[in-house]
Amino acid sequence: MTIELNVTIKLKHGVADPEGENTKKALNLLGFRDVRSVKSLKSFRIEIEPGEGEDEEKVKQEVEEMCRKLLANPVIHDYDISVVKSEKKYNEEINI
Amino acid sequence: MTIELNVTIKLKHGVADPEGENTKKALNLLGFRDVRSVKSLKSFRIEIEPGEGEDEEKVKQEVEEMCRKLLANPVIHDYDISVVKSEKKYNEEINI
Repeated sequence: MTIELNVTIKLKHGVADPEGENTKKALNLLGFRDVRSVKSLKSFRIEIEPGEGEDEEKVKQEVEEMCRKLLANPVIHDYDISVVKSEKKYNEEINI
Repeated sequence: MTIELNVTIKLKHGVADPEGENTKKALNLLGFRDVRSVKSLKSFRIEIEPGEGEDEEKVKQEVEEMCRKLLANPVIHDYDISVVKSEKKYNEEINI
């Protein structure tokens, strides 16, 4: 059985977000004048097959280590890790 | 009062995700051998000041129009729009 985790990486408070800024400008120019701010974020959905005796807490710690070592830049990023419930998993989540 | 919405943009099923693939490889090489898959996603946090008489449903429809016109590429992307509850808002959400 695999565990799916969602890692959201956002810019720390005070770090410039030109992508968000420009998206806001573009939306305003397209006529969406009630848009007050846009922030851009990055997410990863990580599917892990835990080893024997590893529980969710252990897996979360492992993913935190992944963030520190690879996924996030500690100078400019904050991150948030959460376990994805089965009905919200990547392949089922978005159906349009 | 403003409403904050979260727009998650993911690749449609079957579209190649080289960023996710390479992140998985890198994690495996770093010693995280139980990682089975990594998918990359993009999110926007959009803060909207609704006009008079506009409710959440109306604002969600507006954001869907934004996705169609600017934020997502309908050829390769699916998207999901949700209203962010106050305690989960961008500035309060991630505290590490």
